[in-house]
Amino acid sequence: MSGQQDAIGVGLIGFGTIGTGVVKVLQDNAAEIEQRLGFPLRMARIADLDLETDRGVDLTGIHFDSDTPGLIADPNVDIVIELVGGYDVPRKFILEAFAAGKHVVTANKALLAVHGREIFGAASAAGVDIAFEAAVAGGIPILRALREGLAGNKIETVLGILNGTTNYVLTEMESTGEDFDVVLKRAQELGYAEADPTFDVDGIDAAHKLALLTTMAYGAEVVFDEIPTEGIRGLVPLDFELAAEFGYRIKLLGIAKCHRDDDGTERIESRVNPTLIPKSSMLANVDGAMNAVEVIGNAVGPTLYYGAGAGEMPTASAVVGDLIEISREIKRGGAGPVAPLSYLPQHIVAKESVSNDELMGCAYLRFTTKNDPAALGQLTGALGGESVGVASVVQREDGGDSVTIVVLTQTASEAALGRALAKIEALPVVMEAPRVIRIEEEV
Amino acid sequence: MSGQQDAIGVGLIGFGTIGTGVVKVLQDNAAEIEQRLGFPLRMARIADLDLETDRGVDLTGIHFDSDTPGLIADPNVDIVIELVGGYDVPRKFILEAFAAGKHVVTANKALLAVHGREIFGAASAAGVDIAFEAAVAGGIPILRALREGLAGNKIETVLGILNGTTNYVLTEMESTGEDFDVVLKRAQELGYAEADPTFDVDGIDAAHKLALLTTMAYGAEVVFDEIPTEGIRGLVPLDFELAAEFGYRIKLLGIAKCHRDDDGTERIESRVNPTLIPKSSMLANVDGAMNAVEVIGNAVGPTLYYGAGAGEMPTASAVVGDLIEISREIKRGGAGPVAPLSYLPQHIVAKESVSNDELMGCAYLRFTTKNDPAALGQLTGALGGESVGVASVVQREDGGDSVTIVVLTQTASEAALGRALAKIEALPVVMEAPRVIRIEEEV
Repeated sequence: MSGQQDAIGVGLIGFGTIGTGVVKVLQDNAAEIEQRLGFPLRMARIADLDLETDRGVDLTGIHFDSDTPGLIADPNVDIVIELVGGYDVPRKFILEAFAAGKHVVTANKALLAVHGREIFGAASAAGVDIAFEAAVAGGIPILRALREGLAGNKIETVLGILNGTTNYVLTEMESTGEDFDVVLKRAQELGYAEADPTFDVDGIDAAHKLALLTTMAYGAEVVFDEIPTEGIRGLVPLDFELAAEFGYRIKLLGIAKCHRDDDGTERIESRVNPTLIPKSSMLANVDGAMNAVEVIGNAVGPTLYYGAGAGEMPTASAVVGDLIEISREIKRGGAGPVAPLSYLPQHIVAKESVSNDELMGCAYLRFTTKNDPAALGQLTGALGGESVGVASVVQREDGGDSVTIVVLTQTASEAALGRALAKIEALPVVMEAPRVIRIEEEV
Repeated sequence: MSGQQDAIGVGLIGFGTIGTGVVKVLQDNAAEIEQRLGFPLRMARIADLDLETDRGVDLTGIHFDSDTPGLIADPNVDIVIELVGGYDVPRKFILEAFAAGKHVVTANKALLAVHGREIFGAASAAGVDIAFEAAVAGGIPILRALREGLAGNKIETVLGILNGTTNYVLTEMESTGEDFDVVLKRAQELGYAEADPTFDVDGIDAAHKLALLTTMAYGAEVVFDEIPTEGIRGLVPLDFELAAEFGYRIKLLGIAKCHRDDDGTERIESRVNPTLIPKSSMLANVDGAMNAVEVIGNAVGPTLYYGAGAGEMPTASAVVGDLIEISREIKRGGAGPVAPLSYLPQHIVAKESVSNDELMGCAYLRFTTKNDPAALGQLTGALGGESVGVASVVQREDGGDSVTIVVLTQTASEAALGRALAKIEALPVVMEAPRVIRIEEEV
């Protein structure tokens, strides 16, 4: 496409917040980027329906209009950045870019989590690359770590704080003792949470990112909507207080593990849920809107990657990192196409998943019962009847007719715990459905 | 060298602990590596003078003898791993490998910190690559993060816990309240410290790693022996106790910052010294023999990378990550040489360094004085005379004729502080040279 010292040309589809950040990074850091690459990266063209809003960046020398097909076909564009958001429109643009022989960089986790199979296949067929570091944990170069730095490892576990909104809410609930609704409202006022917070607080955004992490870590095709996903609604200040007493903090984690059976079969556990983790762990110290991912490999042991998971400039940093890498590939590969899908394992295969029922672990259980001296005995009896051992019990008067009882269990199967909880929920003394929070000790 | 699905062949010079780990990783994780690459990585040949010791790994199919020139010339060897250690011998092997057109992977931080200029130049001239992820922070893929993930950033600051031995000693001194000598002896018994601990406890190993980090972060040639380096000898239990009272922990940090003057000139600050950092920071929570590096970029903001900084398997993980990356490059590049020095910025330039005297900051100062009521006034008077403001003062009776006075200063220049300390050291009431520990608030 270009000679050794010529610029690599970039085209941007979607000139919103992140797109503006990408233009800023390419302009502000042009000298550093050229020093690292040996050639410049140039924003050649931008397409957006909104041609009026002043984005506060210098557009001199950049072809800016609303002609997306023109951008994709433009011979000055070597790499297309898709920052449109949504599903159908960006999917169409990306497939058209591949068909035109263009490499693509995107931050669209939802699209890749749902349509990844089609998109990765199309890139491979076209002999072009698709890079999406910005789609998972914003500015943290976690996909690269899995793909290259840790690529010699069997990955045992991935544990991620993948959503800044929920981590902000959990951090605030813990430090202020306020209720979920109060903190969420403040997060919305401060711009940390959307007007409709469902996507974040119910764990869906974290599950999208976990699907991509799981594919990168295990070369496993993951069906996003089969990931058991539980959000942070329903947590109460007492949960944080008691977690701290027991030596834990509560984080919403995306968790992926590989279960390697004796016959060599690999099965994938992946889930999103609030989790008690030891408060001395690195992951427990990730506060506010920050993100972090812990990766445990069989050779390297535990490693952790921390940074901003969202925002204009951190996300733009990840997009530009991808541009730099693909540019290097283009220059290395001479005039021909680069090796397809260098971002992904060369063979993505379907791997069986592990059902929640099979999982073994400890749990934090919160019960609301009538203020009846027999309640505790009935609860622990039901747990014991399914061989769910009790490690600790705390009982709190609620000042009314009800009592809160919190139990930390010993290691038990989820299936046994589920049977015990079903029996408990049917007890006349129990006033509400029990709340279960899993405990992960190995972080 | 090889067809699309053929193996890439690896030759290992130096079959010690790390080399054994590399053989284990390539064998144990062969299936994962091939899935990620699309082709196998094969240990073709090993050279070591010791042909007798049983390393506990299967050598079937590996050509193992003491013929290093034969290994370098072997057409089955595409990439040479140098794990000999030291300076002259590995330098010779690496230059011979380049001359034979072989790419090189090494973990030898001391060699690269001292002879980097010659070695990087020779690789470039030969059109081959040299990779050294294992040389800095063991298993943590920090060089990759600087080279790729964060490559769109102006790097503002690098702060690293780069030496596991000293971090273990500091963590133990803090938690037990024991003296340096007691903890060091235990670290030696446990194998965390060498019989001659100089290299670690005096900060030399951390300075070697910092030199490489600085080159990667700023494209700046760094003269290793010009890095101001201070180790952890002379710290006492009281320092940890008072640091905690003031809200800090003490870590031995390698620090590199870029000072960008108004005319665009960049000057590099790099130093190794014990440092007080806020105890709520992620870096302050890195305990025991673990390593971590914080990198602050102008777009991404603060990011942190954590993991094992040494050891057979973590270091082998980093070596194999480099093998995987170079193998991808070889396959991408077809039969020709890959782009040289993809590991390094394309242009490494000499940049002026910032002298310690210019630095501004707060400091923790520990004085030992005679038990004289006038002592405190004389100390604070001398500081005030050089415009070094006092933020806090703690005075402790030592139970004898002496008193310990600890002062936290307000922001001041190192030059002013140095002048004040010179005057203080000359005071008759002062019994020992003052101990200075710098404070970094922005971590």
